[in-house]
Amino acid sequence: MSDNKRTEHDFIGELEIPNDVYYGVQTYRAMENFPITGIPISTSRTLVRGLGYVKKAAAMANRDLGVIDPKVAEAIILASEAVIRGELNDQFTVDMIQGGAGTSTNMNANEVIANKALEIMGYEKGRYDVVHPNNHVNFSQSTNDAYPTAFRVALHEKMDLLIESMERLRESFAKKGEEFQGILKMGRTQLQDAVPMTLGQEFTAFAVTIGEDIRRIKEAQALLTEVNLGATAIGTTINAPEGYPELATQHLREVTGIPVTLAENLVEATSDTGAYVQISGVFKRVAVKISKICNDLRLLSSGPRAGLNEINLPKMQPGSSIMPGKVNPVIPEVVNQIAYQVIGADVTITMAAEAGQLQLNVMEPVIAYNLFNNIKIMINGFDVLATKCVEGITANAERCAEMVMGSIGIVTALNPLLGYETSAGIAKQALLSGASVYDIVLEKNLLSKEKLDEILSVENLMNPRFIKD
Amino acid sequence: MSDNKRTEHDFIGELEIPNDVYYGVQTYRAMENFPITGIPISTSRTLVRGLGYVKKAAAMANRDLGVIDPKVAEAIILASEAVIRGELNDQFTVDMIQGGAGTSTNMNANEVIANKALEIMGYEKGRYDVVHPNNHVNFSQSTNDAYPTAFRVALHEKMDLLIESMERLRESFAKKGEEFQGILKMGRTQLQDAVPMTLGQEFTAFAVTIGEDIRRIKEAQALLTEVNLGATAIGTTINAPEGYPELATQHLREVTGIPVTLAENLVEATSDTGAYVQISGVFKRVAVKISKICNDLRLLSSGPRAGLNEINLPKMQPGSSIMPGKVNPVIPEVVNQIAYQVIGADVTITMAAEAGQLQLNVMEPVIAYNLFNNIKIMINGFDVLATKCVEGITANAERCAEMVMGSIGIVTALNPLLGYETSAGIAKQALLSGASVYDIVLEKNLLSKEKLDEILSVENLMNPRFIKD
Amino acid sequence: MSDNKRTEHDFIGELEIPNDVYYGVQTYRAMENFPITGIPISTSRTLVRGLGYVKKAAAMANRDLGVIDPKVAEAIILASEAVIRGELNDQFTVDMIQGGAGTSTNMNANEVIANKALEIMGYEKGRYDVVHPNNHVNFSQSTNDAYPTAFRVALHEKMDLLIESMERLRESFAKKGEEFQGILKMGRTQLQDAVPMTLGQEFTAFAVTIGEDIRRIKEAQALLTEVNLGATAIGTTINAPEGYPELATQHLREVTGIPVTLAENLVEATSDTGAYVQISGVFKRVAVKISKICNDLRLLSSGPRAGLNEINLPKMQPGSSIMPGKVNPVIPEVVNQIAYQVIGADVTITMAAEAGQLQLNVMEPVIAYNLFNNIKIMINGFDVLATKCVEGITANAERCAEMVMGSIGIVTALNPLLGYETSAGIAKQALLSGASVYDIVLEKNLLSKEKLDEILSVENLMNPRFIKD
Amino acid sequence: MSDNKRTEHDFIGELEIPNDVYYGVQTYRAMENFPITGIPISTSRTLVRGLGYVKKAAAMANRDLGVIDPKVAEAIILASEAVIRGELNDQFTVDMIQGGAGTSTNMNANEVIANKALEIMGYEKGRYDVVHPNNHVNFSQSTNDAYPTAFRVALHEKMDLLIESMERLRESFAKKGEEFQGILKMGRTQLQDAVPMTLGQEFTAFAVTIGEDIRRIKEAQALLTEVNLGATAIGTTINAPEGYPELATQHLREVTGIPVTLAENLVEATSDTGAYVQISGVFKRVAVKISKICNDLRLLSSGPRAGLNEINLPKMQPGSSIMPGKVNPVIPEVVNQIAYQVIGADVTITMAAEAGQLQLNVMEPVIAYNLFNNIKIMINGFDVLATKCVEGITANAERCAEMVMGSIGIVTALNPLLGYETSAGIAKQALLSGASVYDIVLEKNLLSKEKLDEILSVENLMNPRFIKD
Repeated sequence: MSDNKRTEHDFIGELEIPNDVYYGVQTYRAMENFPITGIPISTSRTLVRGLGYVKKAAAMANRDLGVIDPKVAEAIILASEAVIRGELNDQFTVDMIQGGAGTSTNMNANEVIANKALEIMGYEKGRYDVVHPNNHVNFSQSTNDAYPTAFRVALHEKMDLLIESMERLRESFAKKGEEFQGILKMGRTQLQDAVPMTLGQEFTAFAVTIGEDIRRIKEAQALLTEVNLGATAIGTTINAPEGYPELATQHLREVTGIPVTLAENLVEATSDTGAYVQISGVFKRVAVKISKICNDLRLLSSGPRAGLNEINLPKMQPGSSIMPGKVNPVIPEVVNQIAYQVIGADVTITMAAEAGQLQLNVMEPVIAYNLFNNIKIMINGFDVLATKCVEGITANAERCAEMVMGSIGIVTALNPLLGYETSAGIAKQALLSGASVYDIVLEKNLLSKEKLDEILSVENLMNPRFIKD
Repeated sequence: MSDNKRTEHDFIGELEIPNDVYYGVQTYRAMENFPITGIPISTSRTLVRGLGYVKKAAAMANRDLGVIDPKVAEAIILASEAVIRGELNDQFTVDMIQGGAGTSTNMNANEVIANKALEIMGYEKGRYDVVHPNNHVNFSQSTNDAYPTAFRVALHEKMDLLIESMERLRESFAKKGEEFQGILKMGRTQLQDAVPMTLGQEFTAFAVTIGEDIRRIKEAQALLTEVNLGATAIGTTINAPEGYPELATQHLREVTGIPVTLAENLVEATSDTGAYVQISGVFKRVAVKISKICNDLRLLSSGPRAGLNEINLPKMQPGSSIMPGKVNPVIPEVVNQIAYQVIGADVTITMAAEAGQLQLNVMEPVIAYNLFNNIKIMINGFDVLATKCVEGITANAERCAEMVMGSIGIVTALNPLLGYETSAGIAKQALLSGASVYDIVLEKNLLSKEKLDEILSVENLMNPRFIKD
Repeated sequence: MSDNKRTEHDFIGELEIPNDVYYGVQTYRAMENFPITGIPISTSRTLVRGLGYVKKAAAMANRDLGVIDPKVAEAIILASEAVIRGELNDQFTVDMIQGGAGTSTNMNANEVIANKALEIMGYEKGRYDVVHPNNHVNFSQSTNDAYPTAFRVALHEKMDLLIESMERLRESFAKKGEEFQGILKMGRTQLQDAVPMTLGQEFTAFAVTIGEDIRRIKEAQALLTEVNLGATAIGTTINAPEGYPELATQHLREVTGIPVTLAENLVEATSDTGAYVQISGVFKRVAVKISKICNDLRLLSSGPRAGLNEINLPKMQPGSSIMPGKVNPVIPEVVNQIAYQVIGADVTITMAAEAGQLQLNVMEPVIAYNLFNNIKIMINGFDVLATKCVEGITANAERCAEMVMGSIGIVTALNPLLGYETSAGIAKQALLSGASVYDIVLEKNLLSKEKLDEILSVENLMNPRFIKD
Repeated sequence: MSDNKRTEHDFIGELEIPNDVYYGVQTYRAMENFPITGIPISTSRTLVRGLGYVKKAAAMANRDLGVIDPKVAEAIILASEAVIRGELNDQFTVDMIQGGAGTSTNMNANEVIANKALEIMGYEKGRYDVVHPNNHVNFSQSTNDAYPTAFRVALHEKMDLLIESMERLRESFAKKGEEFQGILKMGRTQLQDAVPMTLGQEFTAFAVTIGEDIRRIKEAQALLTEVNLGATAIGTTINAPEGYPELATQHLREVTGIPVTLAENLVEATSDTGAYVQISGVFKRVAVKISKICNDLRLLSSGPRAGLNEINLPKMQPGSSIMPGKVNPVIPEVVNQIAYQVIGADVTITMAAEAGQLQLNVMEPVIAYNLFNNIKIMINGFDVLATKCVEGITANAERCAEMVMGSIGIVTALNPLLGYETSAGIAKQALLSGASVYDIVLEKNLLSKEKLDEILSVENLMNPRFIKD
């Protein structure tokens, strides 16, 4: 063994490991086996922190139950805290997409923490006779409970950030809703002129819809608080001492501040990926609705001369390498693409969940990868949408009003007085002749000018009252 | 006009309608415009009933508010009740997949109810001067509130049946869980032998997982109780009299027994399809988990000689046109396919929801078609799964036990005493030599016979206690 | 046994079958086992015909090879022809979605043909000692080659109809492309005004894109001509006489007129569903592009007053139950929904294909169901799109021209002479001041009036030449 | 302006740019606008190279046509070559997922090449009066033709690497097919014992199926050779000199060695994303089939004692943190996950393609991101699958043979002699009694021992001949 290497072994064989790294032989093999995305788990800091939480809680429970040497337990706890603080982040080197149901991720944590604990205790790295990745750090655990618990805790934490981001976005729409409340415009259904409304109502509806999604996100997030810590290999708690599951879960609750509880049926909980499918489904819902909003923003700002042109998005960058002065709705466009990414990821997650077999779902890493990635790109996208787009939107009030007054759709307001068929006749005539609804009604003596003015007043069109003869 | 025809018109023109049908010109046009699936809305009885509920509640509210003639209102109410009872079911002829955001479905209901009301009042069909599909039956409504409200109420009702079906299926697994509780077998993770468990634990986990899904289904169902009745065209309540939205909703609540409430923001509610996306996402979750269970049933019953052969599924039909005596797991297989259908439908629903524009989502019909179809095939599939498969499953207890005792996986139980590395060495030796774990441990004097027997006793393997020296 | 019943048995047990039906005990069991969609295979006439083709070709090969009695073979051939002609269509009663990898469908055909052959030979139904569904009709076959071969032949036939429908649709767009070739309009990218083009170019592009899709459809269709007839159970040709696979395939080629060939590797061909995934992928491509076209038609016809209003779609039906005179783009809308259905089905098919295990894919029925359904709804949708929409589209040439001349986008045409930055300045000024590009250029003396008129002439905008100083 | 900064401007305003970077103001804005994935286009070296190819070809055409100064053209050509060689790779900083239809990517290339060309000519960076990103580098181009052309060329190049990887994988299976050709085993359909085959046939089928996929990949790749270079903004070639499209395409063909041709209809080609959807569909097909193969490898190697255990996968790493000696099929598992990722990406790409509007599809960046990522992870996965799994697979020939001889499925071989029903009776008896098929046939005197031995000989079971009395 050279000076700056140590030899480690597992039952596959021996391997030389550089002495300056905290991970060991199993991490090393995983790095060789899974050169897939090039994206190591260290990029998902919350996941690494989640691993630290779980290892700390487990060590505390093992210490309390007297199944490992208290000094070793304390060193593991301290090492886990270093992981939680992100100090060993660069040691989490295995690829996000990996075979083995997360064993490599779990062993990466076990090895890093073992070697850090050894360092804390004053030993050289690799002295696994003193602190062993499996026999001490992973004590009372299996990948099959430690990994999903870490994943759940991390996802829960990360979803808090998503909720904050959505809240900011909701707020930005709500403010515009207030700002635009006096602006009359045509409402459209099926892209056809319908009846009047205000631009404020339109933007307020965006805010409301995001508000509902936030509630759905929170409900889905709550499913993550059920963990299977102590289930060990398949949920029978084999190798875990009596009382460990409850105790470890209690420590985890305190360590994380997340109200985690132990699943009632650990066998079921160990193979179940229902919560991830549910969360991904809700992410998809969020994506669908944000994408619809972005489509609307792009439609409403279309033009400037040959489109609807009801609103102006802030100009973020020149829009064309050939068409001078063209500015494009680049921010909504990028958010649309984020939405498609999230929706596609839902299919990936669905297939991965369906591929669970018997006592375990081995495909959790690709689920984790996509859920964390979804959250990241949604937060990034929602933040730019709020700050670089929504907050700077201005309205073309005059243009909006012109389209209302020139429309045929206002004939709907005459329905209760004239009946559907007469109104339809007016609409048809207006369309064919190019005349306005107003003139036709007067010309045909269908209503008095006062009545008509009352109905077609801006006040009434904005908040239509039911006017009967 | 011939004796057995009547002439109707709309602003497109005139059309002759056979006198014996209750629908009218707009339904007729829709039938011509949408010859798509060949599946009329009449096949979805709950949807038709939902339309009846909404039309009845609307007529009651219009009557109460004095905006239509009480006699006309009463006739509409009676006609709606006939629709609710299914008496006019064959008159709902428009295709489930249609353009126009459900206008054709709504007009189909309006026309059928108008003509039925005319009949009740002693008039001939087509006397729309007395009862008009739009001016009376559809009064205070638009397709854009009437149709989604009917859809929601119907879906809510239909989901009750799904919940019942899932409950029966859950029960069938729970019973088997009890029946099989004494049968020791190998647990498997990643298709590799892991550690022992009981067959009862395995089936109980299936029951538990379905139980969780039932809870998720109920949560999603509750989203449907928010309706936009009275929103009319785009949520501004144009053409609806003051107080109508609240009153109509209250009537609908009483008529259906479903605790519907009026959406707080009607503009948002009118274009929002979030609840459908959420429900479809939960259906997908259910599909994923049932598919996983069916995969497990097929794996566990594989063989009979060259497979796992732990359980026997009831023989439902000869399995091969060429291989005599072959019996296949046809019921789980068909349920797998149902699951894939539901998962695919989720993508359809997602895209339809994303395609909403501005004040409306015009793609609701394809959403409705898929949600109703999903429920139908899931109920059918879950019922055959419970009655023609799960209830008749038997266990091959001897075979299960043999595989445990011959396994290497039981070495895990020695972990806490021998440590991970020593245990791994035993496993390796067992695998290479073909010898049993039991013999190797004794031969190497690693544990006393008593200790070893205690650890590897059936009782301990079934409910592993943590045994330390 | 009552007079009008016969008793049949299989190795599950005995069953009474009504004497007037041609199917037998195995079909009967399948009907009981699979009450899933309510859609029997009889609804897919091409599939039934495909089964007839295969059974006929197999009987001819068996006859030629002397492995079944020539008289029995002839009767089977005649009975198969009755199936091909559709005379026994109502006897194909098993559900499209079924377990068992198509065994029930195959046995349905075997039983119907056996009993029809018996009738032809003058025997009573059920005399399987004379003509046996398995020992004679299914001779040299397994479900695992007979069913997919029938499916492939049927799908090939049905795709011919799809191609015809797409060809008609392509033609309808091409004609409009010619009709509209003189109409100048603004081209738009990212919904923002870009540079001028003609409406004819826009519609011609639709035709071209459909033409490309037809080529892709034909390439995918060709994959179906590779069949595994004679592979029997798993591709080893067990139970098929020497020479049978080649001979049966040759007969099938002649019987169907489709250039089927025998797969080179029958083991691979028996479990492979690649062709279906490929075809579904191409259907999805077609769906994506038609959906985009329908989106464009809806955008271009938006308005009439508060939208783009460049074209008018034919009015097919009143568009609203509340808004008089409103007409909606219902035909494109229904085609959008068809597209989403096809795209969702692709996920179903994908998952079903992925679920193949070892020597067979048991999920083919749900694949068949979706592919046939896709073709049906696409043909229906494309036909209404061509005849009820595209053919009747008219252009608002004046409106189109106004938007070009008022646009800022025409500044792009000045780029080669003035450079990107100067042009961008003009654009900015036009946007802020509301002035026209034309006036600003002249006012600033950037170009002579002659040069400017040349560049901005209709002729040049329609077919832009590169004009440099 | 500080010493190490330069001031650039666009029509949004001015910005300070560090002097050591080659990109300029528009790239800078894009970096600020799109902090989405954190994955810059520089990570896709082929895409950057594609941009270099296009800019070089365009400059050559512009030079030939005399529309830009030859000295400027030469500098642009040299700068483009530096980009092609990867020397400026770190300057391609915009995010892979971006709004604006690729404008930022195109401008990133234009700015980097302009500044590199300036450097080559001896000017300072930012001297755009001499070499301008738009007026010179982008001359005769628009993002809307330059970007998709670069994308297509890059994708074509990258697909060559995928094909090589698939070819290696195919070869690894083919070799195992030969190696295992003498190993008799049970074939299984629907996870039930079917009829015998050889392990060699099974592995050869894997090779054949991958071979077919390679052909499909090549067909799809060929679609990329159609480019729209010279189409400029919307396909009308505005701002491109006469003859430019053909000439630039010819140069591109020579520069890249890829047989690119100019699309016949440039308007269609500019908005069309059909080729990407097709390619993604074929990637999905590849994913489906590889996933099925990996599922099979995991099934066949299940055990070692309580599974099928027909083959052994090479042991790559310890499989469990708790179960000593457990080794998992981690390589197939990671490839399954790659497959799900690719399948999910297909939905993303589908939605992005469907979202194209009018003259352009603005969502191409997310399409490009996913297609490049798919190729990367597939190559990585296929390489580990070949080298770390398939090549090291060994067979358990004895175990395989035992399962055949103990099976009931061999009764199928008796079918032609005994008929389906008699054979089914034997099968039933064998299953109930546990006796072997062999013994029952002899005991019942159904066949002579010689005949039976002939039929059930290894030779006949491996290559079944049709044996009739």
